[in-house]
Amino acid sequence: MAGIGIVGAGIAGLHLGLQLRQHDVPVTIYSDRTAEQLAGGRLPNSVAHHHTTVARERLLGIDHWDAEEYFYFGHHHYIGLPDPLSFPGFFTAPSRALDYRIYLPRILGDFTDRGGDFQVRPVDPADVAELSDRHDLVVVASGRGSLSAMFPRRADKSPYDSPQRKLCVGLYEGIAHSEPRGVTMSISPGNGELLEIPIFSFAGHVTALLFENIPGGDTEVLAEARYDDDPAAFEKLVLEKTRQHHPRTFERIDPAKFRLTGPQDLLQGGVLPSVREDYTRLPNGKYVVALGDAHTVVDPVVGQGANCASYSAWELGRTILEDQTFDERFCRKVALRRENVVHATADWTNLMVRVPPAPHLLQLLGAMSANQAVADTFTDNFSHPDRQWDILASPERVRKFLAGHGMAD
Amino acid sequence: MAGIGIVGAGIAGLHLGLQLRQHDVPVTIYSDRTAEQLAGGRLPNSVAHHHTTVARERLLGIDHWDAEEYFYFGHHHYIGLPDPLSFPGFFTAPSRALDYRIYLPRILGDFTDRGGDFQVRPVDPADVAELSDRHDLVVVASGRGSLSAMFPRRADKSPYDSPQRKLCVGLYEGIAHSEPRGVTMSISPGNGELLEIPIFSFAGHVTALLFENIPGGDTEVLAEARYDDDPAAFEKLVLEKTRQHHPRTFERIDPAKFRLTGPQDLLQGGVLPSVREDYTRLPNGKYVVALGDAHTVVDPVVGQGANCASYSAWELGRTILEDQTFDERFCRKVALRRENVVHATADWTNLMVRVPPAPHLLQLLGAMSANQAVADTFTDNFSHPDRQWDILASPERVRKFLAGHGMAD
Repeated sequence: MAGIGIVGAGIAGLHLGLQLRQHDVPVTIYSDRTAEQLAGGRLPNSVAHHHTTVARERLLGIDHWDAEEYFYFGHHHYIGLPDPLSFPGFFTAPSRALDYRIYLPRILGDFTDRGGDFQVRPVDPADVAELSDRHDLVVVASGRGSLSAMFPRRADKSPYDSPQRKLCVGLYEGIAHSEPRGVTMSISPGNGELLEIPIFSFAGHVTALLFENIPGGDTEVLAEARYDDDPAAFEKLVLEKTRQHHPRTFERIDPAKFRLTGPQDLLQGGVLPSVREDYTRLPNGKYVVALGDAHTVVDPVVGQGANCASYSAWELGRTILEDQTFDERFCRKVALRRENVVHATADWTNLMVRVPPAPHLLQLLGAMSANQAVADTFTDNFSHPDRQWDILASPERVRKFLAGHGMAD
Repeated sequence: MAGIGIVGAGIAGLHLGLQLRQHDVPVTIYSDRTAEQLAGGRLPNSVAHHHTTVARERLLGIDHWDAEEYFYFGHHHYIGLPDPLSFPGFFTAPSRALDYRIYLPRILGDFTDRGGDFQVRPVDPADVAELSDRHDLVVVASGRGSLSAMFPRRADKSPYDSPQRKLCVGLYEGIAHSEPRGVTMSISPGNGELLEIPIFSFAGHVTALLFENIPGGDTEVLAEARYDDDPAAFEKLVLEKTRQHHPRTFERIDPAKFRLTGPQDLLQGGVLPSVREDYTRLPNGKYVVALGDAHTVVDPVVGQGANCASYSAWELGRTILEDQTFDERFCRKVALRRENVVHATADWTNLMVRVPPAPHLLQLLGAMSANQAVADTFTDNFSHPDRQWDILASPERVRKFLAGHGMAD
C-alpha cells in the first residue's frame, strides 16, 4: 500500500504512526516543526498520561520512563468551602507527567528508528488534497485552526462559544511534592482550580502549576500578568494567589526557592472546547479522518486531552489494520468505535468547567470526601472517561452511583 | 431493581432474557402466545444459527442440540448460468437449523426454570407506556406492525418499498442431504434462489426448501399456489420448479417419497426489509429500546435475521449489565455497539436481493467458483456479516479482497 499520511506530530499522530509501524504499514508524518523545534520553545502543555495511556505506551514499546520516580499515585483534593473539604483518591495504577518537549522528540525518534518517514513542511487544507493523492489515507492530527476547520464543529457536543477558563501553567521549583506523590486538585469556588502536577522536565522532577481561572474571578490576573516584564513580581503574584486560594499547595512551598524553572516554561491562554465531525470527504472523493485536536479539544482541567487523543489514535489504528479500504464505511467504523469514550471525555470535561457548578457534581464531590471508595472510583476513572460519564451524566446517575455505595439521598 | 420488561418471545427476547437471568436481573417476557401456541401452529420460518450464535447459546447454557447430527458444515452453491457454476464453501465451525416450534418453547422453558417471569398477554404501543412504569426498562422485541411502528423506519438504510422476494418455505421428506451435509444455495438467474436447508423438526431430520422468488419470475407461482386446495398438485409443482431451476437439489429427491411433512409446515409471503431507529422516548420520559424485528427486518435469503437478533440482544444485555440507568446515554451506547454488525447485515442482505444483481456481487461469486479460500471466507462470513460487508460494500472492496487472494482484475 502507498501508506498512511499523518498531518501533525503530537501524541495522536505519533501514537498512530508507531502502532502502524509495528505492523509494517508505511507511514509518513508531516510536521511544521523539526525534532529540534519540538524539543525547544515554549512549554506546550502540562499533560499527565493515565494508566490506560501508559498501557498503550507499553504496547507501542515507548515506555522509556517506567521507573517509579516518574509516577504518581492519585489525587489530593481540596475544596475551599467555608468548611473546607480535603481528601485523597487513589488510582488502580499510576499516572505520569512528562514535559512534551522531552516526550515528543523521544518517541519521534522511535518512529523514525522504526522506519517511519518524517517530513518537515507546513500543511494547509489545500495541501491535504494533494497529500490524499499520494497516500491511501490522510489523517489530520493537528489542531491548527485552518486544519481543524476542515471538520465542522458539532454544535450538539460543543456547548460553549468561548474558553471557560483563562489558563496559566508554568513549571516551578521550590515545591515539595505531596505524600503520597500525587496531583493536587484544588478548587477555589468562583475563582477556579489549581492543578499541581509532579512533572519531569529539563530541570528534573519539578512541579507544574496549572491555574484554571474563571473569567472575572480573583485569579484571572494570572493569565494576563507578563512574566517577562518582571519575573520576580510574577512569581510573587503566583505565590500570593496560591496562598490565598490553595493552601494545600502553598504549605509545601519554600518561598525562598520558589521560582519558574525558566522564561520559556510558562504558557498562558485558553482553549475553546470543541467536538468536530469524525471525517470529511475531499472534492477528489477521498476521505480524511480527524484525530486528536482536529477532532476534539477539551479544557485541560481534568487532564484528558492527550489521553483521549492516544485512545482515539489506537482505535483508528486498529481499524486501519483490519480494513484498508478508506471509504465512508471505514470512517463510520472509526467513528462508532471511538464515540463513546471521546464524547464522554468532552461531556465530562465540559461539566467540570461549568459555572456555577452543577449541583450533582457538587453532590459527588461531597460524597467523595466522605467515602474513600467513591473518591477512588472517581480518581481511577481519569483512565476511563466513559465510566466517569456513566456516573456523572445526570443527577439521576449520580444518585444511583452513590446509592450503590450505600449513600442514599 | 424493578427489572427489565421484554415484549416478544422470539429469539431476541429470549436470548436477552436468558443472559440477564444468568446475572440475576429480574426479567418479565410478555408474549401474545402461550408456550403451547409457540409449539404449534404454522411453520414460522426456516432459520439456521451460525457459529457465532451457537457460541452464544453455549454461553447461555441452552446448547441442547450439540450432537453432530444437528449440524451442517458449509454451503453448496449452484448458479444456473448457461455454463453453470457449482462449488462448495466451508465454515470454520458448523451451523444448525431447528424448527422454531421446537426451539423457542424449549428455551422459554429454560428461561422460566431460571426464574424468568413469562406473561401471556397482548401488548400494543399504548400498553408499552404502562409497562414502562412497571419496569426499569422496556425492550420491544416483536416485529408486529404497530409495535415496530414505534421506531421510525430509517430511509437511509431501507432502500426498498416492497418485498423483493415472494417466499415459499416448506419442510419436506424425500430429499437426501448433500455431502458433506450443508445448505444448498441455488440461484436461477431472473427467477430467484432456492435455499435447501437440513433442519430438525417434529418429523426428525427433514429438509426446508425456501424458494426466494423474484416477482414476475418463473417460480413466483410457488408463493401463491394453495397447498390446501390440492396437496398433490402443490407438491408436484414444487418438484417441477426444482427440476427446472435447481438441479443440485432435484438430483437428490426421490419423487416417490417427496412430500410436505404436514399441512402446517408451509409458509408463504414476503418481508419488507426495514432498518428502524434504535430507541424511542415515551411521553413519560422513559426510553424504549428496539430489538430484533422491531429494529431490523431482513429478507431471509442469507439467513441472517435470527442471528442478527441474537447478536443485538447480546450487546444490549452486556450494556444493561454494565449500566442500569436507562436514559438516552444508555440507548446511545447500545446503538453504537450494535450498529456495525446490524447495519452490515441489512446492507449485505439488501445487496443479495437486488435485481438485477450488482456486477461486483457477480464478480465475487465467479471468483468463489475458482478459488476455495475465497468461497470459504464468504461462507464463514455468514457468522460475521460485518466482515462480509467489508468485502462487499463496493466494487473497490471486492477488487481489493480478490487482489488479496491473488486474483487481480
